[in-house]
Amino acid sequence: MIILDGKKLKQEILDELKEEVSNLLIKPKLVVIQVGDDPASDVYVKQKGKMAEYIGYNFEHIKLPSDILEEELLTLIDKLNDDKEVSGILVQMPLPSQINAKTVQNRVIASKDVDGLTDINTGKLVHNNDTLISCTPMGIVDLLKEYNISIKGKHVVIVGRSDLVGKPLINLFLNNDATVTVCHSKTNNLESITKLADILVVAIGNKEFVKADMVKDNAVVIDVGINRDNNKLYGDVDFSNVSKKSSYITPVPGGVGPMTVAELAKNVLKAYKINRH
Amino acid sequence: MIILDGKKLKQEILDELKEEVSNLLIKPKLVVIQVGDDPASDVYVKQKGKMAEYIGYNFEHIKLPSDILEEELLTLIDKLNDDKEVSGILVQMPLPSQINAKTVQNRVIASKDVDGLTDINTGKLVHNNDTLISCTPMGIVDLLKEYNISIKGKHVVIVGRSDLVGKPLINLFLNNDATVTVCHSKTNNLESITKLADILVVAIGNKEFVKADMVKDNAVVIDVGINRDNNKLYGDVDFSNVSKKSSYITPVPGGVGPMTVAELAKNVLKAYKINRH
Repeated sequence: MIILDGKKLKQEILDELKEEVSNLLIKPKLVVIQVGDDPASDVYVKQKGKMAEYIGYNFEHIKLPSDILEEELLTLIDKLNDDKEVSGILVQMPLPSQINAKTVQNRVIASKDVDGLTDINTGKLVHNNDTLISCTPMGIVDLLKEYNISIKGKHVVIVGRSDLVGKPLINLFLNNDATVTVCHSKTNNLESITKLADILVVAIGNKEFVKADMVKDNAVVIDVGINRDNNKLYGDVDFSNVSKKSSYITPVPGGVGPMTVAELAKNVLKAYKINRH
Repeated sequence: MIILDGKKLKQEILDELKEEVSNLLIKPKLVVIQVGDDPASDVYVKQKGKMAEYIGYNFEHIKLPSDILEEELLTLIDKLNDDKEVSGILVQMPLPSQINAKTVQNRVIASKDVDGLTDINTGKLVHNNDTLISCTPMGIVDLLKEYNISIKGKHVVIVGRSDLVGKPLINLFLNNDATVTVCHSKTNNLESITKLADILVVAIGNKEFVKADMVKDNAVVIDVGINRDNNKLYGDVDFSNVSKKSSYITPVPGGVGPMTVAELAKNVLKAYKINRH
């Protein structure tokens, strides 16, 4: 069993980007908009700021009160869309209930949509056109490629169908010639399907949900879950038992999480280039 | 075994639309652009014209020489996008090789994209927002619903991953709470996967490719193939043998094909309403 070391690959990616950015006269700039005081969001935004500082990106964290109106948020995004200094715009989820998240995400201009969440970038991914793609799915595929795990012709089973992870993964894996199955909360006999997976991706946010008897021998197991319990992090996979029968597996933490940050870093530079073009 | 009668349902849909359109003072208008002289395209455009005439839509068939430049085609689309008389614009595929089909399809404004092929409408479908959706996939789901075949929790296996059929079907079925598997030319052990299907959809364009031993007992079988051989039409499914073990099956012709025309008719009225809004 080999552990897929996302932390190590992240560092390599950041160092490459740092090198490239050191040669740029005008630096890329990432703007993160946070609404309200969700503590998990604070952690994520801080990670993004550290990443930006390390690489040499300009970084702005705009923190807004939780009672802000949707219209005010949209006006802010319009301003950032037009701002030539801004390469990438990221709206940290979750948003308070008076704000429609889809409306807000789609207001970000496609060329600065470093989360790959706009309808237009999602459609481009489906049609296999080069675009800004959601960070976690890209991180998963890059991690597999780093370890020379072939995807073509493999049966990939994705558990979870979120807009951020599950759905873009379908298309990324299809574009890499995998056979893809998507399962979710309405799936019958889930374990009969997860057992078919050559590559199993779990992204449901349910602590250690996937047990060893749900996994085929020698499967590659990708755990996207980040579940906090008593200040400790757990994945969606029962690592200690599943790791015994898998060929490759991601740890939590240190697997997919760091890759998400690395891919965001890549997207900021990509967006910078698109906007300078 | 019950035959899913797309021809009958198409007629019902067309009659409903005809009734609704008879009450409109300004009629919806469908414009079909055809480039070159592909004989199959001639047939398809003619079908669309007949549908429009039956319902009472205005219809314009713009036939362009096969050596037209992409730029000229894009200028024409811009003009139709701006034309308030035009509700829906459809560019008949295939296009000659000097023209980039994706560029052309994406030039159609989303609100007139009755084929549901633009990046933005594709992204909206992925995100389960109401939009204009590709006609054949919509026709398949409507046909299943007409016969009260439940989709939720069912394992749907789609063979074929085209932008027009396979890919939008993934999202339509996911949005209806099915577990979805997508197979294609790079899939290993295809029959081991097709045999899992509660609902099997085949859209590969390969005459009678799916044999009885690839299908589970009592499966619902949807045949999207239209293969011409000696002036006779064949599906992608070996109907005479597969029909013996399936619970429901679509014939070719008379199954999915008519539904595609019916859904186009629905999209034209939907686009009309969006544009009048």
